Amino acid sequence: MHSTYDVIVVGAGHAGCEAATAAATMGSSVLLITMNMHTIAQMSCNPAMGGVAKGQIVREIDALGGQSGIISDKTMIQFRMLNRSKGPAMWSPRCQSDRVMFAQEWRDTLERTMNVDFWQDTVSEIIVKDDRVRGVKTSLGVTISGKSVVLTNGTFLNGQMFIGEKTFGGGRTGERSATGLTEQLVSLGFETGRMKTGTPPRVDGRSLNFSRMEEQMGDENPGKFSYSDTAALTKQRSCWITYTDESVHNVLKEGFEKSPMFTGRIKGLGPRYCPSIEDKINRFADKDRHQIFVEPEGWNTVEVYVNGFSTSLPEEVQHRALQKIAGFEKAKMFRPGYAVEYDFFPPTQLKPTLETIKVANLFFAGQINGTTGYEEAACQGLIAGINAHQNVHEKEPFTVKRSEGYVGVLIDDLITKGTEEPYRMFTSRAEFRTLLRQDNADLRLTEMGHKLGLASDERWANTKAKQVSIDRLTQLFRETKLRPEEVNDWLVNRESAPLREKSTVYSLLKRPEIETADALTLLEMASTAAENELQSYAKETVEQAVIELKYDDYLSRERQNAEKLSRWESLEIAPIFDFDNVKALSFEGREKLKKLRPRTIGQATRISGVSPSDISILLVYMGR
Amino acid sequence: MHSTYDVIVVGAGHAGCEAATAAATMGSSVLLITMNMHTIAQMSCNPAMGGVAKGQIVREIDALGGQSGIISDKTMIQFRMLNRSKGPAMWSPRCQSDRVMFAQEWRDTLERTMNVDFWQDTVSEIIVKDDRVRGVKTSLGVTISGKSVVLTNGTFLNGQMFIGEKTFGGGRTGERSATGLTEQLVSLGFETGRMKTGTPPRVDGRSLNFSRMEEQMGDENPGKFSYSDTAALTKQRSCWITYTDESVHNVLKEGFEKSPMFTGRIKGLGPRYCPSIEDKINRFADKDRHQIFVEPEGWNTVEVYVNGFSTSLPEEVQHRALQKIAGFEKAKMFRPGYAVEYDFFPPTQLKPTLETIKVANLFFAGQINGTTGYEEAACQGLIAGINAHQNVHEKEPFTVKRSEGYVGVLIDDLITKGTEEPYRMFTSRAEFRTLLRQDNADLRLTEMGHKLGLASDERWANTKAKQVSIDRLTQLFRETKLRPEEVNDWLVNRESAPLREKSTVYSLLKRPEIETADALTLLEMASTAAENELQSYAKETVEQAVIELKYDDYLSRERQNAEKLSRWESLEIAPIFDFDNVKALSFEGREKLKKLRPRTIGQATRISGVSPSDISILLVYMGR
Repeated sequence: MHSTYDVIVVGAGHAGCEAATAAATMGSSVLLITMNMHTIAQMSCNPAMGGVAKGQIVREIDALGGQSGIISDKTMIQFRMLNRSKGPAMWSPRCQSDRVMFAQEWRDTLERTMNVDFWQDTVSEIIVKDDRVRGVKTSLGVTISGKSVVLTNGTFLNGQMFIGEKTFGGGRTGERSATGLTEQLVSLGFETGRMKTGTPPRVDGRSLNFSRMEEQMGDENPGKFSYSDTAALTKQRSCWITYTDESVHNVLKEGFEKSPMFTGRIKGLGPRYCPSIEDKINRFADKDRHQIFVEPEGWNTVEVYVNGFSTSLPEEVQHRALQKIAGFEKAKMFRPGYAVEYDFFPPTQLKPTLETIKVANLFFAGQINGTTGYEEAACQGLIAGINAHQNVHEKEPFTVKRSEGYVGVLIDDLITKGTEEPYRMFTSRAEFRTLLRQDNADLRLTEMGHKLGLASDERWANTKAKQVSIDRLTQLFRETKLRPEEVNDWLVNRESAPLREKSTVYSLLKRPEIETADALTLLEMASTAAENELQSYAKETVEQAVIELKYDDYLSRERQNAEKLSRWESLEIAPIFDFDNVKALSFEGREKLKKLRPRTIGQATRISGVSPSDISILLVYMGR
Repeated sequence: MHSTYDVIVVGAGHAGCEAATAAATMGSSVLLITMNMHTIAQMSCNPAMGGVAKGQIVREIDALGGQSGIISDKTMIQFRMLNRSKGPAMWSPRCQSDRVMFAQEWRDTLERTMNVDFWQDTVSEIIVKDDRVRGVKTSLGVTISGKSVVLTNGTFLNGQMFIGEKTFGGGRTGERSATGLTEQLVSLGFETGRMKTGTPPRVDGRSLNFSRMEEQMGDENPGKFSYSDTAALTKQRSCWITYTDESVHNVLKEGFEKSPMFTGRIKGLGPRYCPSIEDKINRFADKDRHQIFVEPEGWNTVEVYVNGFSTSLPEEVQHRALQKIAGFEKAKMFRPGYAVEYDFFPPTQLKPTLETIKVANLFFAGQINGTTGYEEAACQGLIAGINAHQNVHEKEPFTVKRSEGYVGVLIDDLITKGTEEPYRMFTSRAEFRTLLRQDNADLRLTEMGHKLGLASDERWANTKAKQVSIDRLTQLFRETKLRPEEVNDWLVNRESAPLREKSTVYSLLKRPEIETADALTLLEMASTAAENELQSYAKETVEQAVIELKYDDYLSRERQNAEKLSRWESLEIAPIFDFDNVKALSFEGREKLKKLRPRTIGQATRISGVSPSDISILLVYMGR
């Protein structure tokens, strides 16, 4: 009954929504299938977007023409730039979101996107013929043809929830799980595994005593995620910080014997860097307290998210332990935390486009690939959606290099090394993190997004204009010289060494104690300054010009390394390459190479156990 | 772990939300338990409130101090006063709602209500000791003490959904059902039965051709539900009307052999006055078309509700049939219609307070009592919530008489006669429908709501002021006389007979061709008119004064009858009264009286099979 869609997206979380809007914006006919149209883009875990490394991803999604940045901007209730005190590579935008508005805004965005159709149902099977996906079958018994299929099933595949000794089938509290699909994929030859994740209890903000907590306000001048013209916040809601202590831990320990994790009922590995509170107590027994972020769920709601207190202990233990936390003495729970175990598919079964190796035009994105995090899911959805479109229209595959974006790092890590536990992004995962800053994602990626037909002409024009401004400003910094009498009082006042002879603004800005905000001041001090021109530089432009200037040595070294890697990156290893023929390889190196079969030398370099000398040997053998 | 609540409300639909806010506003500590805090106050069926007889109920809820009227006003996208061309007893307010806003507004309202706590869980058992309810147990294994419990389980008790030959457990699409509770209630001696209801497919408004449909706009001067100061709409969205035809019916008939209703897989009876389209075709075989109302689901969404096309035929048949409807040629479905079968408890097991006869302090409200409709559910929730509070605080039971409100008619019908099929309200069910108008619900009920501590002081003050204004205006009508030369031109112009001698405004307003809007004009014409005073009468006041005047003979007759009934109403029949002792009773009358055990003579009069002579005999026997 349905016509053949170019792209069928299964699941409407962060990954599915980005995949659907991307493919549709590029011109594909898209069907988005969700189990419940009322829960599109539900934030299942904490009501927040961004954070360390994750904020960079949101900006990259935005730069490419995705929607997560715009939607986050429209629905945030607080914004903070994390790590401002560290180097700019570490600056990470993060917001608290209004949970209901976020979902509503995604629904509106999807509805406004031409070419996106909706179907409420559960996909129970994919249709495969001649190793190519042809569509899906649903639990209503409907067959829908599609030239490509993007699976973004989240925690729903054979989802099983745990609270203490209780177990429920379901992908999310109050919602069913999806069955049948894993089994079919296994029958097609896919490997599968189990992972687990969890969520903390939700509490009634009216029952908390905030005077016993530390207030964490939003930034004074709040930033935002999107490079487009979304508005910054003019009012914000505060979060609060409190701590567990021994008394909390003692109560929690009473529940350990009923913990589904410690009793072995949960087999899947959970997110190492977002552990449950019982995990934290267990693994860091020497720590006598853990931080708890108390996060409002929206502008008006009294519901509060207890970030840092994820748990699957019995509900009664959760409640007693919560009430031992400072400020939570009279806390009322809305619902207990729980753990959820679900099927994933080791992502080494994917191409860099997120297409599966086994089945052509079948893509996987999000938690199904063993990742954790909204941002990680969203960027995979975007790449999968783009490539589903590209495949169907016989266009070139689209990938982002490790030196071009966290998106590239994430996918390369996944497909090369796989993951044993839920994978989340960190700045430390990027070799070139000084290049991959939150401030320059547009300069890195918008041209690509525009070429794809995803980022608008306006976006690309703005990016080009920004680059022109940065170049002109950098030129001004280099050309403008200050005489000692013009600047020394100011320098001394700033506890910076006075000048003995003329110096460029450029060299003054290099000094660590001189800040971005001083750049225009310095230019103005010079008698040569063209004041009218100065006023026309946006804050972001100045910031970026100064960052590039301050770190230029470091950045150019990173760029050189990236260049080298890029040459290797493109150096393909034939799929039939016989590593056993290369006798000089180390034993471990050969075993890993045979197992993981990197597609390029670049990938080979990143396999743990493959040494630099193994790489040199390979390069020699391959004729370089 | 939880303290003992005064009132535990199970379920957060229309009934549960009203019950919780009412009891909490009156001062009870309330726990609202819902399976999913994201789906509080979901409109499961059409996005609309009010309608014939139902709109009157919403106004009654509002007059008593309930919330449905205010929430409807805040979230409506269109308002129409139905039956304007008929007598004022038939005038019925109805609105289209923004589905998402409606739910959100209820959630906000509940959160703002002091004393309402929330708990997300499924109740699997009630705790009963010495024939009194003591609390609930949940599927998480939590025991919560409560002095009273209000069950509003909707379609969730052993809910089973049907689409063609497919069957799923669940109370609503994408949501689980609730098991265990029915079985326990049966073990406690409750009778239970099955009912069914259904919902139509949702479609994509972008795929419809509205030029082939009739537009149905909102009222030019839209009214509203609440007597409080909610704002009236300043812009509205249109609905559309189209029709099925033979070609649609022929396609639907192809699916009959797979219909869960016709193949007997659905045992429960469905709502007679809101039948599925296959039912309509089957039962009204001579009708060659049926009306379809095409209703937008909100201000911005493209989702559209196909009112009148409720169906559980196979999804593929639904889609093909839809596309035969004028304007639906290219209709894309978001999800198919379905039928849902669920457990209910014959409401003859209830007292007039909605407390169960068997278990003290246990209340039932909404679909669990065999009713259908949001408004029917909401008013039951209100009455149950009020009485749960009253019981717990050892205050008098609260009931509304049949002559005081549709709320009273509804509950009296339910507990006296029971219902074999989903019960919905009609104006014809009320003996005194001219008294029970949508315009005077505040005058009928706000005093009661205020005495209960539910309607605010402000509300009651406004109601009293309105009554004073009506009385003063009525006095003006009676006192103000017009001379022929003052009014005859105007009368002739209105095709109304000219005066020969002086006449009161009162008698002129009695003329059928003179309308409410003319009342102030007529007063102004009189040289005695106090113009300043006239301007101060609100439109509603004038309207009501004129309605009372035009129908005063009829109304006073109804009031007399109501008075008589009221005397009987309060005449109780002892629970141990032995009808077998009254030999003069008719055979059928005695059997019915023994089976249904009316609590008052009033109830006895409304039992079909109990004749007026049976009543007289009873009255004589009881010593009157």
